[in-house]
Amino acid sequence: MEMKTLNNSNNNNQSDSSSSPSSPQRKRVMNPLDPEEFRKQGHMIIDFLADYYTNVSNFPVRSQVEPDYLRKHLPDSAPLFPEPIESILEDVQEHIIPGITHWMSPNYYAYFPSSGSVAGFIGEMLSAGLNVVGFNWISSPAATELETIVMDWLGEALKLPQQFLYKGSNKNGGGVLLGTTCEAVLCTLVAARDKKLSQIGRDNIGKLLVYGSDQTHSSFGKAAQIAGIQNIRAIKTKRSNSFTLTANSLLSTIRSDIKNGLIPIYLCATVGTTAIASIDPIMELCDVAKEYGIWVHVDAAYAGSACICPEFRSCIDGVEGANSFSFNAHKWFLTNLACCCLWVKDHNALTKSLATNPEFLRNKASESKQVIDYKDWQITLSRKFNSLKLWLVLRSYGVENLRSFLRNHVNMAKTFEGLVKLDKRFEIFVPRKFSLVCFRVSPSTIIATRSNNNHNNGHDYYGKLVNDGDDYLVNELNKKLLESINKSGKVYMTHGEVEGAFVIRCAIGATLTEEHHVIMAWKLIQEHADSLLASY
Amino acid sequence: MEMKTLNNSNNNNQSDSSSSPSSPQRKRVMNPLDPEEFRKQGHMIIDFLADYYTNVSNFPVRSQVEPDYLRKHLPDSAPLFPEPIESILEDVQEHIIPGITHWMSPNYYAYFPSSGSVAGFIGEMLSAGLNVVGFNWISSPAATELETIVMDWLGEALKLPQQFLYKGSNKNGGGVLLGTTCEAVLCTLVAARDKKLSQIGRDNIGKLLVYGSDQTHSSFGKAAQIAGIQNIRAIKTKRSNSFTLTANSLLSTIRSDIKNGLIPIYLCATVGTTAIASIDPIMELCDVAKEYGIWVHVDAAYAGSACICPEFRSCIDGVEGANSFSFNAHKWFLTNLACCCLWVKDHNALTKSLATNPEFLRNKASESKQVIDYKDWQITLSRKFNSLKLWLVLRSYGVENLRSFLRNHVNMAKTFEGLVKLDKRFEIFVPRKFSLVCFRVSPSTIIATRSNNNHNNGHDYYGKLVNDGDDYLVNELNKKLLESINKSGKVYMTHGEVEGAFVIRCAIGATLTEEHHVIMAWKLIQEHADSLLASY
Repeated sequence: MEMKTLNNSNNNNQSDSSSSPSSPQRKRVMNPLDPEEFRKQGHMIIDFLADYYTNVSNFPVRSQVEPDYLRKHLPDSAPLFPEPIESILEDVQEHIIPGITHWMSPNYYAYFPSSGSVAGFIGEMLSAGLNVVGFNWISSPAATELETIVMDWLGEALKLPQQFLYKGSNKNGGGVLLGTTCEAVLCTLVAARDKKLSQIGRDNIGKLLVYGSDQTHSSFGKAAQIAGIQNIRAIKTKRSNSFTLTANSLLSTIRSDIKNGLIPIYLCATVGTTAIASIDPIMELCDVAKEYGIWVHVDAAYAGSACICPEFRSCIDGVEGANSFSFNAHKWFLTNLACCCLWVKDHNALTKSLATNPEFLRNKASESKQVIDYKDWQITLSRKFNSLKLWLVLRSYGVENLRSFLRNHVNMAKTFEGLVKLDKRFEIFVPRKFSLVCFRVSPSTIIATRSNNNHNNGHDYYGKLVNDGDDYLVNELNKKLLESINKSGKVYMTHGEVEGAFVIRCAIGATLTEEHHVIMAWKLIQEHADSLLASY
Repeated sequence: MEMKTLNNSNNNNQSDSSSSPSSPQRKRVMNPLDPEEFRKQGHMIIDFLADYYTNVSNFPVRSQVEPDYLRKHLPDSAPLFPEPIESILEDVQEHIIPGITHWMSPNYYAYFPSSGSVAGFIGEMLSAGLNVVGFNWISSPAATELETIVMDWLGEALKLPQQFLYKGSNKNGGGVLLGTTCEAVLCTLVAARDKKLSQIGRDNIGKLLVYGSDQTHSSFGKAAQIAGIQNIRAIKTKRSNSFTLTANSLLSTIRSDIKNGLIPIYLCATVGTTAIASIDPIMELCDVAKEYGIWVHVDAAYAGSACICPEFRSCIDGVEGANSFSFNAHKWFLTNLACCCLWVKDHNALTKSLATNPEFLRNKASESKQVIDYKDWQITLSRKFNSLKLWLVLRSYGVENLRSFLRNHVNMAKTFEGLVKLDKRFEIFVPRKFSLVCFRVSPSTIIATRSNNNHNNGHDYYGKLVNDGDDYLVNELNKKLLESINKSGKVYMTHGEVEGAFVIRCAIGATLTEEHHVIMAWKLIQEHADSLLASY
């Protein structure tokens, strides 16, 4: 990098080129986009990251730092003068890497995966390097057109009904790339809200009502809250229905809400819930919703990826009755963060709420109505060239290989599930779906262990009275187990809670995970369970 | 990349490893994160982009493709089998590059700049490569802590009052990195809305009212619309006040609105408006707002960067009276898209509206209240490791060099402004602010040219009657001029409209722009004006 006027080592550069009037050439302060410097530093970072992937399984998966660890390693203020990339990279290695939780580790099983790939990464590089702002067509036609095409490609791979595709719907439907599901829900919710308010008057916003289940992702309630909708119904699900939202419970809730003067506008149905990957019955729910003019959004954030495999496509059967469908390609589709794919049947519903037409963006192409301006399909104005990475992923791997890749994770989850089932101390809490296994040390194990080991006058291992209830004890033991394995740094799993039960979630999907990692993870869990139960 | 089971050239691979049960080793379908493949492809892309920067000034700045150009170059469906990176890069070169508008070109002067840099790019690479999802502290402590620290660094460089800094405010204030200003406005607006509604009851949402001026960015009205606020007042500005929102006009509008039963909650003041970079008087506006308990957000999306220079800092004098302040580091601060910096005095106001606490994210660190969970400061749950690129920019260049860099752009804008002033056919429409020059062919030139050239019975060059009004003619000629220079591909500028006048905006700030580019741009404008006026 040309740092002619100022440098770190010498502050007495009063006589340098910028302070003295000089030729235009010499007046150049620095070129922060010098191609040769770009090349040098870019190659360094590629090697840094390649080495990182080589070694990532050696790091503790969940970061082991304490709160506020970083401030003591960094200066109090930004530097006044340039620092060399070598020093910065040293700091990344020494102070940043220990503070990250390694989502790229093969031993990462927490939350849902964030499955990066070479193709996803280089797509992001191209997008960051070209650095175009694709708010409307003219600001970079390729950014808009590639997005439309790739979303048609992917929609087709998912066998979405033609109405969701741009080319298949006479340009009424189509897909758009947003950052996260929260955005997909907020955009469609606002569309549904405004459609209703345009009929009944804006003053009735307080009567609007939206539906999800108690398994719906928390971003749904947050989106409704942002949109100024105060009535958010989280309909209770039951174990007997595999924690899905049933059409009957939706119907009876709607009827009672309408009786009470509320106006239902939106249902968020989920394919692959966060806690346990349950699958709401889309077709039946859409039938009910249709009767009441309710917008149905299908949130398949995690499980949507799997629907490119014929054997999983039935999970979204009935989506033709929905208004919108989204899944996160950054979760389990090899596309680096962030990449939420949203399709709508009627993009006019979105643009009626979200379009702006400020003078500074007016241009012939937009006025011709021959082009899409994606700014009107989303919350923000500015947007990156989002489709490059998804295009790279689809082309670099191909749909067939992507299917194999997903099946491979599902198979590893089957392996893990099989191992859990072989150990009678554990139970599979709900039948495995996709690549998520939900399990726990079973209540019977804990009761049996306690009656064998516990001779301390009605007090258990945790100093609680036994008659506090077994549920509490079962949950506490499983919490201890989870914390114990995560503390080891060898794997990272997280938990869910359904009907008061604390379950450990093993979400397989990190790109580097192979079968031997999964087997190792299970052995680790057994070892930690051994010692926990022994000391019980 | 190990593509063992499937490849492009051979579709008859029925006997390959994935189809036949085999050893776990052979069952591996592919490794989409193979470090050596990552290295190979990563280096290729670095060279591709370095070459792109070397040649970027040769491309037409504004893309010259026609709507729907891309579909004919790409297949109808995603490929089933992998394609080599070499073919994909060829397509990028042949079909994508011609379809992008080159925001990285030194001849780019449209909208506001998107000033990428080596540091901004490699920060983005590190973030994409580590691919962590930093929604809460535990999900990657470094992602949270570096953000807090860097936002304190940058806040200090801007001389923001201590209440906006985390460390300076006893942890009540602080900064957060969002994608765009739209998000900053929406988050703070929702906070202000809910604060008021908690006092007066949610049913009063229809009475809430927000203020901006007719120069406020369009995203403000959109954010209010998303938040369910129907009363959006765009107070008229005047040329006599340099198109700023005056305290008097705000005060009288508030008084009349309150009389009419409305409840003002929020003011979006702007430092560096989109059309002409006017600067609202923050201090006076805050004084008025304070009296009525109105939340003041200062949107300095473009001009905020310049405030790290002491000579520009006065533009945000009075910010201590505001509740929140934001600027886009991706505009004019060398940080690749997207990076909006938002500071608030009271982050509890944000989290009261935006916090969620779902079971699956519960963890000891969050419960200890010792850490920040940035998910509660923003709309979405998922978030990238946003601070890396800003950290890289601050360290790689240093605050002093960043100041020089910005001053260099301002100096180039002065040069351009000086050239415009020398040509009596043109006028500077409003005094230059920062690096934005607003100019046009002056009305007097057009009137003079018309009376010299026009002998066609009261019809002018465009076939309009002369008595349609001169304003129309002036605007039409300037539109023609702008379209003509943009069509040449040699520069790209866009326009603004104030008080009905169409002005050409020359926004200097692309990273690669040097003085000779600016001089060339002016010559080009003169040439096009010559021929337009000659044929007039």
